[in-house]
Amino acid sequence: MEAATRNFRVGLVQMACAPDPNENLEKAVWRIREAAARGAELVCLPELFRTQYFCRIEDPELFALAEPIPGPTTNTLAALARELRISIVAPLFERRAPGLYHNSAAVILPDGAMAGVYRKMHLPHDPLYFEKYYFAPGDTGFRVFQTPCGPIAVLICWDQWFPEAARLATLAGAILILYPTAIGWHPPEKDAEGHAQLDAWRTIQRAHAIANGVFVAAVNRTGREGPPGRDLEFWGSSFLADPFGRVLAQAPASEEATLIAECTPALIEQTRRHWPFLRDRRTDAYQSLLDRWSDRR
Amino acid sequence: MEAATRNFRVGLVQMACAPDPNENLEKAVWRIREAAARGAELVCLPELFRTQYFCRIEDPELFALAEPIPGPTTNTLAALARELRISIVAPLFERRAPGLYHNSAAVILPDGAMAGVYRKMHLPHDPLYFEKYYFAPGDTGFRVFQTPCGPIAVLICWDQWFPEAARLATLAGAILILYPTAIGWHPPEKDAEGHAQLDAWRTIQRAHAIANGVFVAAVNRTGREGPPGRDLEFWGSSFLADPFGRVLAQAPASEEATLIAECTPALIEQTRRHWPFLRDRRTDAYQSLLDRWSDRR
Repeated sequence: MEAATRNFRVGLVQMACAPDPNENLEKAVWRIREAAARGAELVCLPELFRTQYFCRIEDPELFALAEPIPGPTTNTLAALARELRISIVAPLFERRAPGLYHNSAAVILPDGAMAGVYRKMHLPHDPLYFEKYYFAPGDTGFRVFQTPCGPIAVLICWDQWFPEAARLATLAGAILILYPTAIGWHPPEKDAEGHAQLDAWRTIQRAHAIANGVFVAAVNRTGREGPPGRDLEFWGSSFLADPFGRVLAQAPASEEATLIAECTPALIEQTRRHWPFLRDRRTDAYQSLLDRWSDRR
Repeated sequence: MEAATRNFRVGLVQMACAPDPNENLEKAVWRIREAAARGAELVCLPELFRTQYFCRIEDPELFALAEPIPGPTTNTLAALARELRISIVAPLFERRAPGLYHNSAAVILPDGAMAGVYRKMHLPHDPLYFEKYYFAPGDTGFRVFQTPCGPIAVLICWDQWFPEAARLATLAGAILILYPTAIGWHPPEKDAEGHAQLDAWRTIQRAHAIANGVFVAAVNRTGREGPPGRDLEFWGSSFLADPFGRVLAQAPASEEATLIAECTPALIEQTRRHWPFLRDRRTDAYQSLLDRWSDRR
């Protein structure tokens, strides 16, 4: 497959999000332009980039932030993709039907067409991350989108803690898994736990690259949001890892960045030939992965 | 379950293996004694500790190294376990029937009884690691053994690259996953790839701890084996990671060590309450994990 062996540059937009959704879209547009000018053919924005991370509270008024796909944001970004001749991954609060909302990502191709939508499959619901209130569980499964850079998968934030998701994206043919993200520190925990949390986050995603022999990119927001005592400090640190888990590029924690990194898909087959995990999976013995716990049967 | 909330010490025996199997058993015995004297209640030996890593070549004469379980080695170690009142994990080249051999690990309890046997499920077969020649694929599945330290799982070496194995051991109730191992560098590759290989190995096992909220221990051999040009330099670096992926203890690369580390099982539930991945697995969407690749259906 020709597309999968051509090198290409990805652009990872790490941004802070303002209260005004229009300001965030404007910033995303200029950062996408910057990424394209620096050679990116595929640009990924952070999770729910149009807004601040509203899931810090549960408030029915906030469903008004949702929009359809296609809709105003994807229309704007489709025009931009067409102009710049690049692919864009746009994570959005999707209004799929009245009363039915998802944490989604639209994949837009260089001709402005929509390759499709991924809807976040694994939803968190924990202090200041009350996502099960807003979002219905995704029903897309772990899809692959055909782009001029090759087949890519988009998973979203909490998905990054589940090896099953990365494996399924790999088996579906992904050469690159993108993780748009909104993860940060609870400031009171940061001193004691912050380093270990960030390290665990980086470690598990690097491990997905290693286990599957794929490129993995995390695209996080940065900045502090919310009132003192109810605030989150998003930890940035967006990165790209190669199929060996080596970090090729890494953004800082507390600054915005347009991170550009090169993917060399030929490295995938080379890595997998030396460490042929896909050859040796015991698919005959994995049935219990479909169980919640071992007491089911 | 009381056993799962009591702290306990594990002993990880990192040893170099001599050509003489008796010498290796003697060394294992005195290192187990040392570990017990330092408070270990559960001691794990490296993969195939009785011999040098014979899978560097394919030679039918070498099947003579195999032994039954129970057999001479487990008899010796059962007596030792009883004397020291500890549990011992003994990885062996198992002769299960004439012509049927496995890469196995016997789990011996403090009364000298056998808790059971794990037979390596994922077998490598790559330059100097020709395991598919010697060993039939394991048929035990990913078991848990009840010990006085709580329920533990034993996986072996190549298993460590498969997130499925660690997940299944966790769902079966393991609080600690032990990985007896024989992994090392091909000396000609070491300068260019050695650091990344060791780092990938540590990273993916730390990630199993994180993804599953369990303790993970790797128990590797050390030393150089084989003639120049066909030799392996085993990279030691045995370690214990906590359910957050933090490395609690780590052995050097090129020296023997009896590594003692404490497991605090209460940390498992604490970690999982804060990062409740087991709550959020999408077991309804994992069916394709049973496929080899996405073209099956």
